[in-house]
Amino acid sequence: MKQKIVTFGEVMMRLSTPGFATIEQSRQFNAILGGSEANVGIALAHFGVAASHITRFPDNLLGQNAIKYLRSFLLETNQILLGGDRLGLFFLETGAAMRPSKIVYDRAGSSFAQLEKGMFDWDEILKDATWFHWSGISPAISQGATDCLLEGLKVAQKLGITVSADIFYRSNLWKFGKTPQEILPELASYSNIIIANEDNVNAIFGIENEGFIDAAQKMMQQYPNLKKLVDTQRTSVSASHNLLKATMWNGSELVETENIDINPIIDRIGGGDAFIGGLIYGLMHFNDDLKALRFGVAASALKHTIEGDASVSSVADVEMIMAGETSGRLRR
Amino acid sequence: MKQKIVTFGEVMMRLSTPGFATIEQSRQFNAILGGSEANVGIALAHFGVAASHITRFPDNLLGQNAIKYLRSFLLETNQILLGGDRLGLFFLETGAAMRPSKIVYDRAGSSFAQLEKGMFDWDEILKDATWFHWSGISPAISQGATDCLLEGLKVAQKLGITVSADIFYRSNLWKFGKTPQEILPELASYSNIIIANEDNVNAIFGIENEGFIDAAQKMMQQYPNLKKLVDTQRTSVSASHNLLKATMWNGSELVETENIDINPIIDRIGGGDAFIGGLIYGLMHFNDDLKALRFGVAASALKHTIEGDASVSSVADVEMIMAGETSGRLRR
Amino acid sequence: MKQKIVTFGEVMMRLSTPGFATIEQSRQFNAILGGSEANVGIALAHFGVAASHITRFPDNLLGQNAIKYLRSFLLETNQILLGGDRLGLFFLETGAAMRPSKIVYDRAGSSFAQLEKGMFDWDEILKDATWFHWSGISPAISQGATDCLLEGLKVAQKLGITVSADIFYRSNLWKFGKTPQEILPELASYSNIIIANEDNVNAIFGIENEGFIDAAQKMMQQYPNLKKLVDTQRTSVSASHNLLKATMWNGSELVETENIDINPIIDRIGGGDAFIGGLIYGLMHFNDDLKALRFGVAASALKHTIEGDASVSSVADVEMIMAGETSGRLRR
Amino acid sequence: MKQKIVTFGEVMMRLSTPGFATIEQSRQFNAILGGSEANVGIALAHFGVAASHITRFPDNLLGQNAIKYLRSFLLETNQILLGGDRLGLFFLETGAAMRPSKIVYDRAGSSFAQLEKGMFDWDEILKDATWFHWSGISPAISQGATDCLLEGLKVAQKLGITVSADIFYRSNLWKFGKTPQEILPELASYSNIIIANEDNVNAIFGIENEGFIDAAQKMMQQYPNLKKLVDTQRTSVSASHNLLKATMWNGSELVETENIDINPIIDRIGGGDAFIGGLIYGLMHFNDDLKALRFGVAASALKHTIEGDASVSSVADVEMIMAGETSGRLRR
Amino acid sequence: MKQKIVTFGEVMMRLSTPGFATIEQSRQFNAILGGSEANVGIALAHFGVAASHITRFPDNLLGQNAIKYLRSFLLETNQILLGGDRLGLFFLETGAAMRPSKIVYDRAGSSFAQLEKGMFDWDEILKDATWFHWSGISPAISQGATDCLLEGLKVAQKLGITVSADIFYRSNLWKFGKTPQEILPELASYSNIIIANEDNVNAIFGIENEGFIDAAQKMMQQYPNLKKLVDTQRTSVSASHNLLKATMWNGSELVETENIDINPIIDRIGGGDAFIGGLIYGLMHFNDDLKALRFGVAASALKHTIEGDASVSSVADVEMIMAGETSGRLRR
Amino acid sequence: MKQKIVTFGEVMMRLSTPGFATIEQSRQFNAILGGSEANVGIALAHFGVAASHITRFPDNLLGQNAIKYLRSFLLETNQILLGGDRLGLFFLETGAAMRPSKIVYDRAGSSFAQLEKGMFDWDEILKDATWFHWSGISPAISQGATDCLLEGLKVAQKLGITVSADIFYRSNLWKFGKTPQEILPELASYSNIIIANEDNVNAIFGIENEGFIDAAQKMMQQYPNLKKLVDTQRTSVSASHNLLKATMWNGSELVETENIDINPIIDRIGGGDAFIGGLIYGLMHFNDDLKALRFGVAASALKHTIEGDASVSSVADVEMIMAGETSGRLRR
Repeated sequence: MKQKIVTFGEVMMRLSTPGFATIEQSRQFNAILGGSEANVGIALAHFGVAASHITRFPDNLLGQNAIKYLRSFLLETNQILLGGDRLGLFFLETGAAMRPSKIVYDRAGSSFAQLEKGMFDWDEILKDATWFHWSGISPAISQGATDCLLEGLKVAQKLGITVSADIFYRSNLWKFGKTPQEILPELASYSNIIIANEDNVNAIFGIENEGFIDAAQKMMQQYPNLKKLVDTQRTSVSASHNLLKATMWNGSELVETENIDINPIIDRIGGGDAFIGGLIYGLMHFNDDLKALRFGVAASALKHTIEGDASVSSVADVEMIMAGETSGRLRR
Repeated sequence: MKQKIVTFGEVMMRLSTPGFATIEQSRQFNAILGGSEANVGIALAHFGVAASHITRFPDNLLGQNAIKYLRSFLLETNQILLGGDRLGLFFLETGAAMRPSKIVYDRAGSSFAQLEKGMFDWDEILKDATWFHWSGISPAISQGATDCLLEGLKVAQKLGITVSADIFYRSNLWKFGKTPQEILPELASYSNIIIANEDNVNAIFGIENEGFIDAAQKMMQQYPNLKKLVDTQRTSVSASHNLLKATMWNGSELVETENIDINPIIDRIGGGDAFIGGLIYGLMHFNDDLKALRFGVAASALKHTIEGDASVSSVADVEMIMAGETSGRLRR
Repeated sequence: MKQKIVTFGEVMMRLSTPGFATIEQSRQFNAILGGSEANVGIALAHFGVAASHITRFPDNLLGQNAIKYLRSFLLETNQILLGGDRLGLFFLETGAAMRPSKIVYDRAGSSFAQLEKGMFDWDEILKDATWFHWSGISPAISQGATDCLLEGLKVAQKLGITVSADIFYRSNLWKFGKTPQEILPELASYSNIIIANEDNVNAIFGIENEGFIDAAQKMMQQYPNLKKLVDTQRTSVSASHNLLKATMWNGSELVETENIDINPIIDRIGGGDAFIGGLIYGLMHFNDDLKALRFGVAASALKHTIEGDASVSSVADVEMIMAGETSGRLRR
Repeated sequence: MKQKIVTFGEVMMRLSTPGFATIEQSRQFNAILGGSEANVGIALAHFGVAASHITRFPDNLLGQNAIKYLRSFLLETNQILLGGDRLGLFFLETGAAMRPSKIVYDRAGSSFAQLEKGMFDWDEILKDATWFHWSGISPAISQGATDCLLEGLKVAQKLGITVSADIFYRSNLWKFGKTPQEILPELASYSNIIIANEDNVNAIFGIENEGFIDAAQKMMQQYPNLKKLVDTQRTSVSASHNLLKATMWNGSELVETENIDINPIIDRIGGGDAFIGGLIYGLMHFNDDLKALRFGVAASALKHTIEGDASVSSVADVEMIMAGETSGRLRR
Repeated sequence: MKQKIVTFGEVMMRLSTPGFATIEQSRQFNAILGGSEANVGIALAHFGVAASHITRFPDNLLGQNAIKYLRSFLLETNQILLGGDRLGLFFLETGAAMRPSKIVYDRAGSSFAQLEKGMFDWDEILKDATWFHWSGISPAISQGATDCLLEGLKVAQKLGITVSADIFYRSNLWKFGKTPQEILPELASYSNIIIANEDNVNAIFGIENEGFIDAAQKMMQQYPNLKKLVDTQRTSVSASHNLLKATMWNGSELVETENIDINPIIDRIGGGDAFIGGLIYGLMHFNDDLKALRFGVAASALKHTIEGDASVSSVADVEMIMAGETSGRLRR
Repeated sequence: MKQKIVTFGEVMMRLSTPGFATIEQSRQFNAILGGSEANVGIALAHFGVAASHITRFPDNLLGQNAIKYLRSFLLETNQILLGGDRLGLFFLETGAAMRPSKIVYDRAGSSFAQLEKGMFDWDEILKDATWFHWSGISPAISQGATDCLLEGLKVAQKLGITVSADIFYRSNLWKFGKTPQEILPELASYSNIIIANEDNVNAIFGIENEGFIDAAQKMMQQYPNLKKLVDTQRTSVSASHNLLKATMWNGSELVETENIDINPIIDRIGGGDAFIGGLIYGLMHFNDDLKALRFGVAASALKHTIEGDASVSSVADVEMIMAGETSGRLRR
């Protein structure tokens, strides 16, 4: 069956300072478009999987810019809505050595936050999809975004589409009045693969646990649709040097990758999304959880060496890393 | 007496595309800070007049960037407030020939719009000022901005400070619930020099008139503090070629400048603010209304040839244009 | 009926020097993708017409770059072939005043030139198209490109699709062994709208004539599918200043536009393609030949003020010029 | 008491090649302004301490550029003199791995070198200062600069202002006829904190010693105003990788920090100045010599990761490093 | 006979702001190398004439940069001396419309100014030269530069080499103690072609006159080596729009060109040098004074449309302008 | 004796993406010129050795650009031929960490590939040369290039010029019909120093061997002109981190250098050519094989830290590395 993924989430303009300049002094910004879920779709599109992103942009020159950008990254954009007041933004400065990268968000009141129930025709959107991906960012943004997502999840379940969820919990995102504990459990109940760690399981789903395996087993008891719980572990030596690995409980065993060493990091943003993109690709194609997890970690490692939010590696690029070819020898 | 001007108004980050690129395709933006009233202050600072700008920025890296920017343009910034949610923005693409420049505003919910009555210590702010300048943009933004401005105007009047007002009416700015007709007349009543044309006089102040002189005379009757009504006339041959002149009714006669031909225009934004900066400089120093008006037009013309929102010309630069030296001969 | 255009032709990477730098000294090039027929499609896509471009790129990173570029310009790219040896290139330096712009072509042996009969599935490609556009560049490139085009034209005729042709004769393009006189007449016989002047009619189609009207009438006698002959007249004051108008013989009358003055020109490349894009849009929607022709000239004029090969103006942008709003006043 | 630092020294335009380009080939330079003592002031200004820099610039466009630059870095510039012939310059290329960064100085005959006794009104300059900082560069430049500095030191002593001195000895700076041994001892005698190592103590002050502690004790005997002798130790693994620590003798004990690992270095210039800025901030605020020294080293380490001559870190940024948060994790 | 020109004069680094930015705000400069006489040589080298430039650079990275730059502009550099203290610089901002371009010179104490008598081996330098060119800038710089030039002129005369001189008088250049009236007459006496106007003839050579022809005739009486007196007339409409023509008295008749209209000007610097380069080429090859003068004016006009100090046009480029092809039509 | 090297080989335009951008997304390329043998010549020219490069460029603006580029890198270019169809190109993206750099070649049909026997006047070219260098790339390109090279080698042998050869075998280069086994042995027979490893010796020259020493000894038996066989060993930790050493069999002993650690790598392209340039310099000047080999490795290491294809280090720069000064300390 031809695979097609549909991703749902906000896409913001990322205004980043050139090189290692600070936001405080910068008089020039590079502008790309990025959002966690769209990044997952872009990664899959570059692996050759059809990918359509669902979001909402203002009907102005910036919304047009956003659509053109996503199209150039191989996403289908024909189901994107135009309307609402503004495009969400964030400003980024890139750290080095012990200096962290910094982000200033400016996303309040965006066209996506202004979503309202019923705006999307999910039956049409999902009609030829095989996979649906969402993250915990969308329900943090507004009730309307939550409502739209829930509608989509119900249609996905109805159509038998695989659903993955990146819990991605950041407390300072939840500003519209509801708590993650009120909202995320229902959304999670429609999901087959969840990316979350044991602390999320405790804090958000109220499941006390004794570590990742225990957390995964208890989650699966409570959420029968859940088939795999996945977590990544990042070791930050510095802003320029990280190590990355991943772990999965698939219902019967703990699957775990080796660490990949990333030094230097060129652009850390979107590294987690590239992992999920790679993982989904692996789960779609490999029938081998370890291989899928390793594909995800390799895709994520490569993303860290590429400018921008999105993974643009090919399957061959990732497989070379999986095969241990990390020497970076020139390819002519 | 040593002159010092205080200006009050929002300052936004202007994100402009490089060269003549369109917003719709751009992946890079030049960032400067600009706002109509701050531009007036910057022009005067470059003419050697002490200038302090009063506004409010968010207390984040973008607010710091804004302060640093204004400082480098010679403004005093020590009375600027930090707080509120965000920095207002606008995106700009520069037109050429018959293609107009375009602006996309993104200023809703800015720290300035969130101003509240009583936030500024106007007695302290204005204690050594000789001139106060405001524009019709601030009262269009929010009730809080209007309240703060009104407080300032009352203190200015109390201290005997000259007040200038740029009516600058754009209907699509007025979104917070009040109309310009409800608000501007009271603010105007504190002002000694007003920049407005006869249509503004009719539409905003409800004074029907038979042209500029009639409008000015009737305004002065109704607003006894008003000493001069000033208007500029722009002839747009194309986005790259304009002609500019100005007119003033000073209570006794019509003062009028010749046209200055501007071809090519490098950056049209802030041209009106440079005129006001020049006019104020002239009124402060020349005791000759025509000379002051001509200084304003020359400053404005020069601004059109300079990148950015702000006039950075010196008095000598402007006087050279006033003296008819518009041949642009190389100066070594 | 929902309009859809299919365009066919080579797309090259255009490597242009920044600003007004010469190729001879340049150590940096801006890279965009452009080709006459794709430019027509892009213009129409920006007017809201579905547009699919048919071409062939090498299956390497440059081919991927090209596809991404065309997608970001709103073209459908899913029928583009990958294969062959290389991407055609051209180097461009931009002139000013009396200095002409210069192009160095490097397109020999391109993937497009290596096209072979039967490579395209024209029935699939054209199945929902309402318009097909080609130019005289493709048959100049190789026999294979000619063969593919002829196949497409036959299918277009079979499906009753409107066909437009830009004769675009440049003698130094014809290097593969055939002459335009051997090839273009057959291709033209399938075409309903032809862009050519009276000299082309004489030189290529062997029809002696006494001017444009005579040429058009004789062409229509000989090529019964031909409904409109169209020509543009460019007055070059300098590399920075042109005037542009267009003429059409529609079988019954001479339709002629006024001149539009373009000063300064920002990027002259693709100006003719934008005219054709506008003309086609007009013929699709207006049922008024003069209005269509004026829409084409206005679209072309705007293109001259925009960086890059392609027209990215909206219908509203063009209609503003048609309405005589050429003053370039700032639009907020 | 509100702290205010006054710094004195030359500020040059730094023309650096972009990225890692060499001076020998470069056709583009980034221009910032920098000078050791001004860098100290900028660091403190970013820590929230009022900072005024005393120097002299030519009264031309480059002098104006310099003032604007320093203002944007939060320095007070109202006591800077305008006059003299030229702005000092230096050209910089940035090294990597084993390739060292290189500087070509072009500072002879600068406005600062042309200083003459009596040019500064030190009573006015220092009236509300609590700290005065100078370095061994100024007396190396000219007799006039030395004279001005000595005048300032005398006023500082009179007013009871704390004085710090960065000995910063480079033999090739001393070209105007005097030796450091003739000049520095008198200047040092007015100073309370001196940054110098045991070799400087021997070579410049003629005090033979058996290491840092011995040198410090003997210096304090000879220079009774001296309260702390401070030195930094840099381990250069490569141009891209350094380790940094610092040592202080405070009259009673040896205070010593751990090493901080800096990899990769983004811009090494000004690293020592950032240390002094941090040290002074610490001495002003912490009443804990080790904490002050560690603040200095952390500030210096951060500076190495920031483009430009100057430390623009906040107190919170530095404290995070002091707290051991050197993992560079993204901060949202 | 194979022509070879030797040019003598200072070459400075030109640091120009990007686009139309002002020096006062700029944090980036484009760096090229330029000098009036070297520009003449470069123009001739691009016309295919062997050209060697004689100057002196410091023996540092900036001197190496200068040599590499001149080599890339086709000059022979093997007779350039290395030594002395510094490379002369100038900063340039480009004007537009009525705003003039501005230059800040920083050339005092340059390696060229430090030239001393006897440093050059003129017999070797001029051994295969057919033409020697100098300008009035060199003798203004220092006695040493004057001495070296005079030595060269004597050798040129001895070898029968044609000598051209660009009087190029700017009073503020003459700072080393001598006046142009003391120095230029002797130097001029060795010259066969002089570029100067009637005012120069009066002011520098003390020859009162009644206009250009009279001045030329009297000069030729007094300076028997002089065969042609040449002058250019520039009409400055604005910094962006000039007209240019030239006049020559060749001993028997007044030769005069038409005006060439230049709009817009891209880079005005070096326009006069390009004229001289073109004139010399013409005198070398055409045996037709008017044609030579027209070649010079066309070369100069083209230079105004090219970024940088130097004419890089080919003979064919110039001849196209001479033939009246000033329409700037695209050349493929 | 004054040394002069002549190098022979293709020079291509290298179009590299800025920073770490991928080719697939790039809309800007930096353009330099590079070719293995020219890079060797440039390295030697920067060490002060006269160097002339022999190649062929198209007679168009790109060929002129190439000549200017090589001249600015101190090569003599007066024996370069102009003619043929096009300039060879390659596109480069720079890798980081585990992501390899990638090259897309576009060199088919280049002016160099179109070389024909007899085009070069080798007696004139080599008349004052002391060294001739070629690589295995040229004979892979075309029969004509091979023929020209063979002619040159015969003249070099006749004149007693030292010949070095970089075997540089890449199978995908050999596309014109011949195999390296058919062509390289004859060419090698004229060479005195060969850079190749034991696998090349086996695969190309058909000499089975038991390692480098054995391979070298057997090569020398079969090729009596061969005096030294040289190989480099690169350890790739990642695309950003390599170690480099070299080995030589000089007929009597194995000469071997220590490893140099290179981290981070700025530009890896041309690293091998810089080694050869350094080795040749060393063999020309040191009379000490180990020192020559170490000079080569140090030059190569430095090249990895410099942007572009070519080594631009001075002898002093390299000697500092040889002396163990790899700490990258700032040099003022």
